[in-house]
Amino acid sequence: MLSYSFSDNKSIPLYEQLYQKIKNDIMSGELPADSNLPSKRSLAKNLSISVITVENSYNQLLAEGYIYSLPRKGFYVSDILRTSGIQDGSGVSRNPNNKATTLSPTQRQKPQWFVDFTSNANETTSFPFSNWAKLNRKILSEEQELLMTNSPSNGLLELRAAIANYLHGFRGISVNPDNIIIGAGTETIISILIQLLGYDLIYACEDPGYEKVSLIFDANNVRNVRIPVDEQGVIIDELSNKSVDIIHSTPSHHFPTGITMPIKRRYELLNWAMKNDSTEAQSGLHNSKYIIEDDYDSEFRFTGLPIPSLFSIDNNERVIYMNTFTKSLASTIRISYMVLPDHLMDEYRKKLSFYSCPVSTFEQLTLARFISEGYYEKHINRMRTASRKKRDLLLRVIRNSSIATISEISEEQAGLHFILKLNMKMSDDSFIKKCRESGINITAISTHSFMFNYSSIPLNRIEEAVVRINRSIS
Amino acid sequence: MLSYSFSDNKSIPLYEQLYQKIKNDIMSGELPADSNLPSKRSLAKNLSISVITVENSYNQLLAEGYIYSLPRKGFYVSDILRTSGIQDGSGVSRNPNNKATTLSPTQRQKPQWFVDFTSNANETTSFPFSNWAKLNRKILSEEQELLMTNSPSNGLLELRAAIANYLHGFRGISVNPDNIIIGAGTETIISILIQLLGYDLIYACEDPGYEKVSLIFDANNVRNVRIPVDEQGVIIDELSNKSVDIIHSTPSHHFPTGITMPIKRRYELLNWAMKNDSTEAQSGLHNSKYIIEDDYDSEFRFTGLPIPSLFSIDNNERVIYMNTFTKSLASTIRISYMVLPDHLMDEYRKKLSFYSCPVSTFEQLTLARFISEGYYEKHINRMRTASRKKRDLLLRVIRNSSIATISEISEEQAGLHFILKLNMKMSDDSFIKKCRESGINITAISTHSFMFNYSSIPLNRIEEAVVRINRSIS
Repeated sequence: MLSYSFSDNKSIPLYEQLYQKIKNDIMSGELPADSNLPSKRSLAKNLSISVITVENSYNQLLAEGYIYSLPRKGFYVSDILRTSGIQDGSGVSRNPNNKATTLSPTQRQKPQWFVDFTSNANETTSFPFSNWAKLNRKILSEEQELLMTNSPSNGLLELRAAIANYLHGFRGISVNPDNIIIGAGTETIISILIQLLGYDLIYACEDPGYEKVSLIFDANNVRNVRIPVDEQGVIIDELSNKSVDIIHSTPSHHFPTGITMPIKRRYELLNWAMKNDSTEAQSGLHNSKYIIEDDYDSEFRFTGLPIPSLFSIDNNERVIYMNTFTKSLASTIRISYMVLPDHLMDEYRKKLSFYSCPVSTFEQLTLARFISEGYYEKHINRMRTASRKKRDLLLRVIRNSSIATISEISEEQAGLHFILKLNMKMSDDSFIKKCRESGINITAISTHSFMFNYSSIPLNRIEEAVVRINRSIS
Repeated sequence: MLSYSFSDNKSIPLYEQLYQKIKNDIMSGELPADSNLPSKRSLAKNLSISVITVENSYNQLLAEGYIYSLPRKGFYVSDILRTSGIQDGSGVSRNPNNKATTLSPTQRQKPQWFVDFTSNANETTSFPFSNWAKLNRKILSEEQELLMTNSPSNGLLELRAAIANYLHGFRGISVNPDNIIIGAGTETIISILIQLLGYDLIYACEDPGYEKVSLIFDANNVRNVRIPVDEQGVIIDELSNKSVDIIHSTPSHHFPTGITMPIKRRYELLNWAMKNDSTEAQSGLHNSKYIIEDDYDSEFRFTGLPIPSLFSIDNNERVIYMNTFTKSLASTIRISYMVLPDHLMDEYRKKLSFYSCPVSTFEQLTLARFISEGYYEKHINRMRTASRKKRDLLLRVIRNSSIATISEISEEQAGLHFILKLNMKMSDDSFIKKCRESGINITAISTHSFMFNYSSIPLNRIEEAVVRINRSIS
C-alpha cells in the first residue's frame, strides 16, 4: 500500500500533494507501468484522508494520462514513454512566492536620443488625449453590446463608413464602405493582399522606396524586384522589363524623395496596368496588373490642394488604395486600411473572409467616432500647423547655420520629412557616428543625403539639434 | 488669352476655381499639349484677380503635372497620355453637401439569433467594463509618453512580463518575457510562424480540429495535411506517414472533441519532433520538427488542476506555445501571443523584427495592467463560475428534456463548449435548418454530433433554447 506523509503547508491542497507524490513515484519508476493502484477507499483509509481527496488526485492523474482505469478493476499506472530528455512534467505551481524570471515589469523603453530624425513616432503632446479619452469613456459605458459583437472580417461598418465619408470629403475619393478592409498596419494589409492576389506573381517596390515593403514581400516568400524612380516617379519601362505584376507606389508623395508623380506618368502607370503582355496564358483574376497606391501622408501637404489619387482616376479596377492612421494619429495605434476594386473585394469575400479583423472593436469604434464627430479633421489641421511650424523652423535654422553653404534641401512642401543633402568631404558613416555621439539619430538614404523625419521632434529642441549637427561635420 | 468667369459661390476659393477651369481645358483638349500659358501677371490682370491667386492655381497644376515650367520661358501644358478610360481626374471636392454613397453609419450588426451555439463571442455582461474603463482612463492620463512610444516588434515589455508572470503562476510555465511575441489573433500569430519557419515545410492540423488553422495554412500558401486524432489525440504514425514538419495541436483540450492528450502520447509527440527522418539532407533551423501547442482555453478547466502544457515538459526547444485573450477576455479584443524557444526567437530577431507589433500600445498597456493588478485572475474566476453555471444548467435541461434518451454528451469537463450527439433518424441538414428557423444557430462537427458553444448564451435563454431544439427534432 502507498504510504505518504503530507506537508503542513496549508496553501497546497491535500489532493494536489497526493497527486504530486503519486506522479513522482510514477516518473521515478517507483510505481512501474501497469501496476495496480490501491482503491480510492482503501488509500483514503490508509492515509487518513477523505475519499473525495483521493478521488480528486486520481482524477487529475487520469486526466493527464499518468494512470488509466479498467472498468470494475481499478486504476493502473500508464506505460509512459521515457525519453532521454524527460524532466518532471509537473510544472504546475500554485506557490505565489515562486516567482518567474526576475524582471521589472515597469522597465521602460526610454527615449534614447536628444532628437531622433529616423523615427516616425509622433510627439507625445500632439496626440488628442482628452478627446480620445472622452470618446473612449462614452463608448465603454454606452456601447457595450456593440463592443462585444465580433466585427465583420473587413472591419466595423461604423469605421468603414467614417473612412468612406472622410475619403470623399477630403481626398475626393468615392468608395463604398463595403470595399474597405481594416488592417493593423502596413504589414497585415500587404500580407492579406499577397494572399488575395497570389504567390506566383512578381511584386515590386520603388527604388529608393519604403524599405519595409520589400522586407514584407521577402518575409511573405514572394518574388520581388525594385523599380528605379526618376524625377517623375516610377519608370514605366522598367516595370515591363522586369515582368512586374504588382507595384507598390507612393505617387502623391514619393517616399523618401518627396516627388509628386505628375498626371502624365500617372496615366502611363494606369496604362501599364491595363496591358496584358505576359507571355504565359493567364486567366481570371490575374490577367492584368495592379498598382498598390500607398497614400501614407497625403494629409500633410502644406501648399495647394491635395493631389488627386491614382485610385480616383482609375476606371479599370487596377488600383488598390491604401492608407494608415499610424502617421496622422499615432504610430502606436495600429489601424490602417485598403480599398479594393469590386472584383477583388468579391474575391476577398470568397477566399479570406474567414479571417477575423485584427483590430479590436474597442479601437475601431473609438476611431470611427473620432472621425465622424469631426475630431479627426481638427486634429489633422492642428498637426499640419504644428508640422509646418517645425519644418519652417528647422529649415530656417539650417539655412542660417554654417552648413547652409553645403546644404541642398529637397521636397519640403509636403509630408513629415525632407531630404538634406550635405556636400561634404566627410564620409556618411563618420558623420552619422558623430551625430549619434551627440544624441542626434540620423540616417542616410543615399550618399550624403540624409532623411529628416521631424514629426517626433519637440519644437524647442530644433535649434540645439542643428547646432549639434553643425558640430558633427568636420 | 484665357478668359474665365468665376462663380459667386464663396465656399470654393478663387484659386481652386481657376485651377479647375484650366485643368478642364487641358483634359478636354481646349488647351493642347505644349501650348504656352499666359504669365501669372498678365492672366491676373486679364481676369482681375490677384497674382497670388493665379500663382496658387499654377502651383497646383504644376504639382499634379498638368502643366510644366521652363526657366525664364513660363508655363506649358503637359502632354498627358489620353487613354480610352480617362475620366476627370479632379475628384477633389470640398463641398460638404456632396455626400458619398448614402449609408447610415449607425447601421449595426444586430444579433440575428435567439441563441447562437456557433459563436465564440462572450456575453456582453461578462466583460469587466468598469475595471477596464478605470484602467483605460488612468493610462490615458498618466502614461502618455509610453503610449506614444513604439513598442518593440514582439510587443510591449510590460505586457510580456505580465503574461510571463501569469503563465508561471497559473499555468506552471516558466518563460522569459523576451521569448514572447504579441499578435492580433491566431491569424497573425500563425502567419508570422510560417514566415519564420519556412514555406517549404509540410504543416498539419488535427482532424477533426480547429478549421480556421487549415484555412490560414491554405491562405498562406503552404502545403498542409490533416492528421486524424484517436481517443488520445493526434496519431503519431500519421505524422511520419505524411512527412509532417509542423503540427498544430490542442493537447490540453482537443478542439472540438475535448480530449485531453494523456502524458504518454505527449511524450510520443515530443519524441516525434526530435526525430530527423527526412530523406532529404536538411540543415540549420529545420533539421527537426515543431509542435505548435495551442492552449486556447486552458483557463476553463472546471475540475482538477490544469493539465501541464507540452511546452513545460519539452527540453529540446521543439514546442511553440500559443494562447489568446480572445476566449478568456473578449473575442473583440484581438490579443494573442506565442512563446518561442530560444533558437527560434533568435531567428525571429534576425528575420522579422522589422515588423511593428500589430496591437496598439493603448490596448497592450491596458491589458498589461489588467493582468498585473490582479483583475484578470478575478475575471477568469468569475467567468469560470458563470460558464460552469451555464454548462450545468444547459446539461441539466437537456437531460430532463425529451431528447435525453437519444443524447450522448461528451467532454463536458472543460472549455466553453461540449459535443452533443443526437441518435436520430432526421438528417443533420434538416435538423439544423429547423433549429435555425426557430432562432437557434447550431452546427454539426460530424454526423449527428453538434457543437455547443455556450459562452455567448444568456443564462435565462437556456431553457427556452432547449425547448426549441426539442421541437426541431421530428
